[in-house]
Amino acid sequence: MKGTVTVRLKGGVLDVEGKAIEGALGRLGFADVAAVRVGKVFEVTLPDGDPDAARATLEAMAAQLLANPVMETFEVALEPS
Amino acid sequence: MKGTVTVRLKGGVLDVEGKAIEGALGRLGFADVAAVRVGKVFEVTLPDGDPDAARATLEAMAAQLLANPVMETFEVALEPS
Repeated sequence: MKGTVTVRLKGGVLDVEGKAIEGALGRLGFADVAAVRVGKVFEVTLPDGDPDAARATLEAMAAQLLANPVMETFEVALEPS
Repeated sequence: MKGTVTVRLKGGVLDVEGKAIEGALGRLGFADVAAVRVGKVFEVTLPDGDPDAARATLEAMAAQLLANPVMETFEVALEPS
């Protein structure tokens, strides 16, 4: 079973990498870009089993290791198997 | 209009960060994790307009800047506005 945890910076937190990419896209001719924010996706392969348990495991992983709760939010999704 | 570009390492490429996270999850008690792969999500805000043009713009951005075509694949998605 595969799940993904997507981690994003909270809205109020300055995204330095996103700002740099905005600048680079502008220099490449993409003048219309209003904003870029950068996040991470963690694709986790778990043993097949109960989807609810898998979702709970992914949330625990995100809360304990993958996301920084002070600056980031996370979202968990299970791929249909 | 918002779109996302998700960039992932190709299957054959060693994901060092993913391996490190696998190890850390194991030490935290998540013994069942078979694999972790790490990717990036770029959330791009574009002016409202033709969805096909927006998709083409996102693909051009990914090909020219956001992804490294040698080691990475990318996927483009538009959020319904």
